[in-house]
Amino acid sequence: MKKYNISIIKGDGIGPEIVDEAIKVLDAVSYSCGFSLEYKEYLMGGIAIDVTGDPLPDETVKGVLNSDACLFGAIGGEKWDTLPRDKRPETGLLKFREAMEVYANLRPAIIYDELVNASTLKPEVIEGVDIMIVRELIGGIYFGQPRENDGFKAFNTMVYTKPEIERIGKQAFELAMKRDKRVCSVDKANVLEVSQLWRDTMEEIAKDYPEVELSHMYVDNAAMQLVRNPKQFDVIVTGNIFGDILSDTASMVVGSIGLLPSASTGDKTAIYEPIHGSAPDIAGQGIANPIATIESAAMMLRYSLGEIEAADKIDAAIKKALKDGYRTGDLAAYDAKEVVSTAEMGDVIANNI
Amino acid sequence: MKKYNISIIKGDGIGPEIVDEAIKVLDAVSYSCGFSLEYKEYLMGGIAIDVTGDPLPDETVKGVLNSDACLFGAIGGEKWDTLPRDKRPETGLLKFREAMEVYANLRPAIIYDELVNASTLKPEVIEGVDIMIVRELIGGIYFGQPRENDGFKAFNTMVYTKPEIERIGKQAFELAMKRDKRVCSVDKANVLEVSQLWRDTMEEIAKDYPEVELSHMYVDNAAMQLVRNPKQFDVIVTGNIFGDILSDTASMVVGSIGLLPSASTGDKTAIYEPIHGSAPDIAGQGIANPIATIESAAMMLRYSLGEIEAADKIDAAIKKALKDGYRTGDLAAYDAKEVVSTAEMGDVIANNI
Ligand SMILES: CC(C)[C@H](C(=O)O)[C@@H](O)C(=O)O
Ligand SMILES: CC(C)[C@H](C(=O)O)[C@@H](O)C(=O)O
Repeated sequence: MKKYNISIIKGDGIGPEIVDEAIKVLDAVSYSCGFSLEYKEYLMGGIAIDVTGDPLPDETVKGVLNSDACLFGAIGGEKWDTLPRDKRPETGLLKFREAMEVYANLRPAIIYDELVNASTLKPEVIEGVDIMIVRELIGGIYFGQPRENDGFKAFNTMVYTKPEIERIGKQAFELAMKRDKRVCSVDKANVLEVSQLWRDTMEEIAKDYPEVELSHMYVDNAAMQLVRNPKQFDVIVTGNIFGDILSDTASMVVGSIGLLPSASTGDKTAIYEPIHGSAPDIAGQGIANPIATIESAAMMLRYSLGEIEAADKIDAAIKKALKDGYRTGDLAAYDAKEVVSTAEMGDVIANNI
Repeated sequence: MKKYNISIIKGDGIGPEIVDEAIKVLDAVSYSCGFSLEYKEYLMGGIAIDVTGDPLPDETVKGVLNSDACLFGAIGGEKWDTLPRDKRPETGLLKFREAMEVYANLRPAIIYDELVNASTLKPEVIEGVDIMIVRELIGGIYFGQPRENDGFKAFNTMVYTKPEIERIGKQAFELAMKRDKRVCSVDKANVLEVSQLWRDTMEEIAKDYPEVELSHMYVDNAAMQLVRNPKQFDVIVTGNIFGDILSDTASMVVGSIGLLPSASTGDKTAIYEPIHGSAPDIAGQGIANPIATIESAAMMLRYSLGEIEAADKIDAAIKKALKDGYRTGDLAAYDAKEVVSTAEMGDVIANNI
């Protein structure tokens, strides 16, 4: 029997609750598909600060690097917001991404038919939307040097090298090959030199993918087009901060932030996590929506472990749960037949497998 | 009789057509309110390249600086997109903003009741939205040094000094005092040093405006909230590139890009222009919507000339035209009683005064 080592980071707030449900579903699907998963838990974020004084302990870095993939809940909370910058959960998160070298953040924005009304956009605008945002995750202005704040003047550097753009660009084109074969590269090349290099490099990569149609869009226009007509997009590839902004916009376009997963991948390992945060305000009440995390586990099976059948089974089990009218409280207003707890939703989906 | 010197830049594409209608309305309102406007026309953008070889001739810079305010159409077009960077219309635009020292770009996003269906967002989400976005316009990553692209590595610098943040912050608080007294400052202070200085400076300014409520939002969340619940915002203040992205998002939220004006103001002069572009594809056909430009002229009367009554009259005349069912082609689908040309819309609004 095939065995995989999965590192688990539950994190803060609702993190532990939602990750537990994903593990429940992973156990069901691995049993049914004939492979086994071994989990090891590591600390990160606020809880790591509380326990070890460090938002990203060395043990976590080593453990995750040695695993086949990492399932991640969510981190952060007001409690740690007043700590000095280098001790904050976010700093741990950025260091973690860098240490794992996960340069490609994949954020699918898809619509579940049953929840088409959960968006603030009109149903006819979003029905059938299926976008994959590929965000560069360990470069750009997030990590660029020099950076400084002397209290009078402050600056950051948005920087990319050609190899950095090439590796993220290739990821986008590879994904497009398995989808609708269209890549839209988003930049601000009419103003920024760094975007000009981005654009030129994308053009070069495109030569290796003659079947894929490459287009370019300025970031302001892209933000607009995501609201105006999101159906026009297949794969969007963009830099770190533009991707941060656009993927949040896209998640609102499809409406259901509690349903959207993400993958952060590189050449060494990959991290799978819901796109939503740790929601400290509802933590511990058993009402959080675990679907985004369960769907992240499905992405892990698909992209890191190559267990496509198992991933498909989870996708189908989630769809069936929604079709059957099961909803956690956040989506109670949208055709709920039964409003369920976090754990009950996990049970329903595991049973569907 | 009071006299004002107005510089006019018609620009490219639909620019000349829409500016002509704004002048028509300005003439009607100045006559009715008892002041006079003297216009002088200057070249910029593509047409300036064609005529003088320079997207921003010196004469334009001097002329506009010596005027009380500038009414601006739109510039650019494919024809000039392949020119070297320093000869492109956008380069002229950025140099123009810098030379005029117009550091504050005001972009209102408001809903006309009659056109609430023109947005892709649901009517109940946008009814009554009234946001003023205050974007810093001559600093940040647009103008930051150093900047370079050597073909292998490229970078730009996002930089702000405290005085730069102070002057834009004050503008936002002053505007809030005349509105709902709420300022939301948008940054990425959990990642960027430049945002940390931005945030700290906003906090300091807030002390001088005890009646105004200041909140902070990360730019990714702001992009999301504009789609999720735009009614929560009064004044949004943010840096150059974040403002570029968010104001385009906001314009789509309210749905009608052909209706939204903007003002770029500083201590020397101010430029008033529609937020839409030069739309070369429909230029010369007499079908462009002139309302955004007419509304920009109203902003000019209000903010630069202090002719509040005249500005109110234009606002009312536009509302009446829409209420009476007059629509240019772009809005023909939304309760049109009569679809009119660019010039006819100008006539209708001028006659309403
Ligand atoms: C918490 C923050 C540093 C992070 C980011 O900006 O990358 C978050 O917004 C995200 O998108 O994962
Ligand atoms: C044309 C471009 C340089 C400009 C900008 O980015 O400022 C435009 O998008 C705008 O918002 O006025």
